[in-house]
Amino acid sequence: MRAIGIDVGGTKVLGVVVDDGEVVAEHRVPTPTTGHALIASLVLVVRELRGVVADAAAVGIGLPGLVDRHGILRYAPNLPGVVELPVAREVAGALGLPVAVDNDATCALRAEHAMGAARAARDVVLVTLGTGIGAGLQMDGVVVRGANGFAGEAGHMVVEVDGIPCPCGRRGCWERYASGSGLGRRGREEGEAGRAPALVALAGGDPLAVRGEHVTVAARQGDEVALALVDEMADWTAVGLVNLLQLLDPGMFVVAGGLAEAADVLLGPVSAAYRRRAVSAEHRPPVDIVMAELGERAGAIGAAIFAATGAESAS
Amino acid sequence: MRAIGIDVGGTKVLGVVVDDGEVVAEHRVPTPTTGHALIASLVLVVRELRGVVADAAAVGIGLPGLVDRHGILRYAPNLPGVVELPVAREVAGALGLPVAVDNDATCALRAEHAMGAARAARDVVLVTLGTGIGAGLQMDGVVVRGANGFAGEAGHMVVEVDGIPCPCGRRGCWERYASGSGLGRRGREEGEAGRAPALVALAGGDPLAVRGEHVTVAARQGDEVALALVDEMADWTAVGLVNLLQLLDPGMFVVAGGLAEAADVLLGPVSAAYRRRAVSAEHRPPVDIVMAELGERAGAIGAAIFAATGAESAS
Repeated sequence: MRAIGIDVGGTKVLGVVVDDGEVVAEHRVPTPTTGHALIASLVLVVRELRGVVADAAAVGIGLPGLVDRHGILRYAPNLPGVVELPVAREVAGALGLPVAVDNDATCALRAEHAMGAARAARDVVLVTLGTGIGAGLQMDGVVVRGANGFAGEAGHMVVEVDGIPCPCGRRGCWERYASGSGLGRRGREEGEAGRAPALVALAGGDPLAVRGEHVTVAARQGDEVALALVDEMADWTAVGLVNLLQLLDPGMFVVAGGLAEAADVLLGPVSAAYRRRAVSAEHRPPVDIVMAELGERAGAIGAAIFAATGAESAS
Repeated sequence: MRAIGIDVGGTKVLGVVVDDGEVVAEHRVPTPTTGHALIASLVLVVRELRGVVADAAAVGIGLPGLVDRHGILRYAPNLPGVVELPVAREVAGALGLPVAVDNDATCALRAEHAMGAARAARDVVLVTLGTGIGAGLQMDGVVVRGANGFAGEAGHMVVEVDGIPCPCGRRGCWERYASGSGLGRRGREEGEAGRAPALVALAGGDPLAVRGEHVTVAARQGDEVALALVDEMADWTAVGLVNLLQLLDPGMFVVAGGLAEAADVLLGPVSAAYRRRAVSAEHRPPVDIVMAELGERAGAIGAAIFAATGAESAS
C-alpha cells in the first residue's frame, strides 16, 4: 500500500511516499513558525506528493513534542508558536483524506523497526539525539505510546536536580547535556574562555556562534578540545542510556537524529562511556548501541507506516 | 483456579494461596541469607500452604532485583548472598510443580491491576517505596518485562550525577534519596547534628539508629524536623515520578511498598511536590497518584496471578 508520511522537524517539513518499503517520492519545505502556517505547509506537501503518486491515500504525520491520541499537538518546545493544534482534524479536513498523527521519535522507531536498524527486535529504545532528545519505545513487541500518546519524552528526564535550566521549566534535563544543544553550549563556553580556537574559527570567529556541528567537525579533524567535549557529551549520553536500561531493559538501543550524522566521531565514545557506566554488567547480556539506518527520512517513513497500518485516524 | 504466590522481601518470605481473587491461606518465614537456604524456605512455604489447600497446583514467586525470563535470580542488591540462582528450576524440581518467577514490583503491579488500586487501568506505573525503589510497568495494557525480564529498576535511575554513592556502583540513584533508606539517612544526619531530638529519642537515644520509620512516626506526631524531612523526601520522590511521567506517560501512579504504610504523612507531600514539579501541566490531563490497596500481600498475590495466568514456567 502506498502511504504518505511527513516529519515535522525544527527546520524542515519532510514528506515521502512509501510503497512496499521503498521511498518513491519526496518533498520538503521549511518549517513555518505558526500553527496556521504549519497546517498549510502540511497540506501543500501532501498535494505535491499526490501530484507525483496520485493513489497515495493515507497520510501519517510525525510531530515533535506532546502529540495526543486525538491527533492534537498539545505542546512542542521546539515549535514555540504552536500549541493545542488539532493537526489531524485540520489536515484531514483540508484534504479529504484520513490522517494519523504521532510523535516523531515514535515514528522513527516504527521505521527503523520495519526496515532499518531494529528489524525483528522485540524490545527497542530508539533515542533521537538532535537539538533535543526524544525517544521511541517498543516493549514486548508493542510500540509504547502512553495514556495520552506522550510517552518517550526522554530528553526531559532530570539527571541533575539543580542543573542547567531547561526551557521546559525544570532544571537538569538530560537534553541540556547530551544533545546537540549541550555540545554547542559547551563549545561556546570553551570558546568564550579562549580555550577552543579551532571551534571559534569554524564558527567564523565568533565564540557565541559555536554550535554542536562545529564541535563534531573539529573532533573529526582531531582537535583535542573538541574531542574532549565529545567525550564529555558521550558520558552524559551514557548516563541517560543507562537510566533507560534500568527502567526498560531494551535488547538494543538505536541512536537517531541529527547527531547520528556524526556517528563516526560519536558512536565510539558513547559506547565506551556506556560500558563504563553500565551496572551489574556481569549479570546482564550486553546491549548493542547501533546507529539508525534511515537517516533524516526515518520519521517520515515511520509516519507513512503508521498511516498504512491502521492507526486511529481523523478523516 | 487456586494458585500459590510467594513474595521474597528483605526480611520475610510471604506466601499466600489465592482462590478466585481471595487470599484463603497465608504462611511466612524469615528471609534467609544464602541461595541454598532461600530455595529451602520457598519449598517449605509451598509445602505448608499445600498442607492447608492441597489442590493449589501452580506456584508463582516474586523476587527483588534482576530476575530473568528463565526464572534465574541474576542479581539482587538487597539479597547480597544470592546471585545467579536458578530459582524456578530448583523449586520446581524439589516440588514437582510448575513454578513461574518474576520481579516483585511487577508482581505487585499485576495484583493491584487485577484486584487493587489499578483495576481496569491501561497505562500504570506502580512504584514500590521501601528500603529501595522498584517499579512495575504496564503500558498499553501490556505488562512490560523487558528483553531479559529486568524492566522496572527505577530506583537506579540517576537523578544527580555526582550524588550519593549507591551500592549498585553508580552515584545519585533515585532510591538514595526517595526511599526509606534516604529518609533514614537524612534523619541520622539531622540527629548527629543535634537538630532532631525527637527522632533520636524514638531511636532509643542513638542518632545512628534513626531509620525511615522513626521519621514517619515523628512526622505523624507533628515534629517539625521530621515534617521537613518528609517534605524533602517527597520532593525527591516527585523528581523521579515526573521523570517516569515524561518517559512513560502513565494514566496513574500507584505507590506501594513499606512507605505506603505511612501514606497518611507521605501522600499529601508527595502529591503536592509532584504538582509543583510536573511540566507542561496545562497541556496534560492530570495523573492520579494513589496508594496501593493490597498492602504487604500485593507481591505474593501478583505472583499467584502470574502463575495462574500462563507465565513461562519451569516444571
